Amino acid sequence: MLKLFAYNWQVRQDWFAWCQDVPEEELLRGRTGGVGGILHTLFHVADVEYSWLSVLQGKPEFTEPFENYADLRRVTELSARFREEVRPFVMAWTGEMEDKVLSEIAPGGEPVSFKHGEIMRHVIAHEIHHIGQLSVWSREIGKVPVTANLIRRGLF
Amino acid sequence: MLKLFAYNWQVRQDWFAWCQDVPEEELLRGRTGGVGGILHTLFHVADVEYSWLSVLQGKPEFTEPFENYADLRRVTELSARFREEVRPFVMAWTGEMEDKVLSEIAPGGEPVSFKHGEIMRHVIAHEIHHIGQLSVWSREIGKVPVTANLIRRGLF
Repeated sequence: MLKLFAYNWQVRQDWFAWCQDVPEEELLRGRTGGVGGILHTLFHVADVEYSWLSVLQGKPEFTEPFENYADLRRVTELSARFREEVRPFVMAWTGEMEDKVLSEIAPGGEPVSFKHGEIMRHVIAHEIHHIGQLSVWSREIGKVPVTANLIRRGLF
Repeated sequence: MLKLFAYNWQVRQDWFAWCQDVPEEELLRGRTGGVGGILHTLFHVADVEYSWLSVLQGKPEFTEPFENYADLRRVTELSARFREEVRPFVMAWTGEMEDKVLSEIAPGGEPVSFKHGEIMRHVIAHEIHHIGQLSVWSREIGKVPVTANLIRRGLF
């Protein structure tokens, strides 16, 4: 589990570095698919990871809108802060936590429950999926995207 | 590990079903990013999963080009056949297999080695990333993409 979080954190860092060479209007421009923009996507994956892992720990979710963070420096800093806050939980993950149950009330009012292992994998897949969208938008603006390869990153 | 493969297989099936309502010229049309097309992407993720998992088992990779399979029926059938061939290996995965070493000769001639657990996660992330690209192209042709959510799929 940890390896896939470490992969996502490294790839996200690589995308923040990639953003350094891109005009801010391109980072903020509305695009087709996903949450509709490059910087908004990076904000969104950091938000969703932080919020789900907070819920698993009985802590409040993050609820601020992207508009409060809509420049590269602020999203980069928010992502770094969130990563440091969730890292201990991810590092302490064990197989025994897989089947712990999270019970919630869905937006429609009905009770729902998830296993903690299900939420952890959902968070992992969520970020990789959105990063795939960045790779298309990167090519649209004529730039080589960050590699999505998990091998050859020194993670193992 | 199995849960993330099961997720990818389910999402891939959902995309094949999604393709049923899309004109074949849209499935084959060249697009920006990734391997450059919808059906080619579905072929590519099936190929890469099959080939890496074959290599881990000491079996030959798949080497045929997309052009040999460039219609929906053929890619769907190839994907189903590959999934059945790799499923026993995925189902039999245990933590002890994580650190087994795969030694190869890279295209440049130098020796490289990977842990089996690294390759397995690489294959998982590879597919999710490419499926993220499909979600953008789906919106470009005005269609709602398959959900990428891992929760609420009955996987847990």
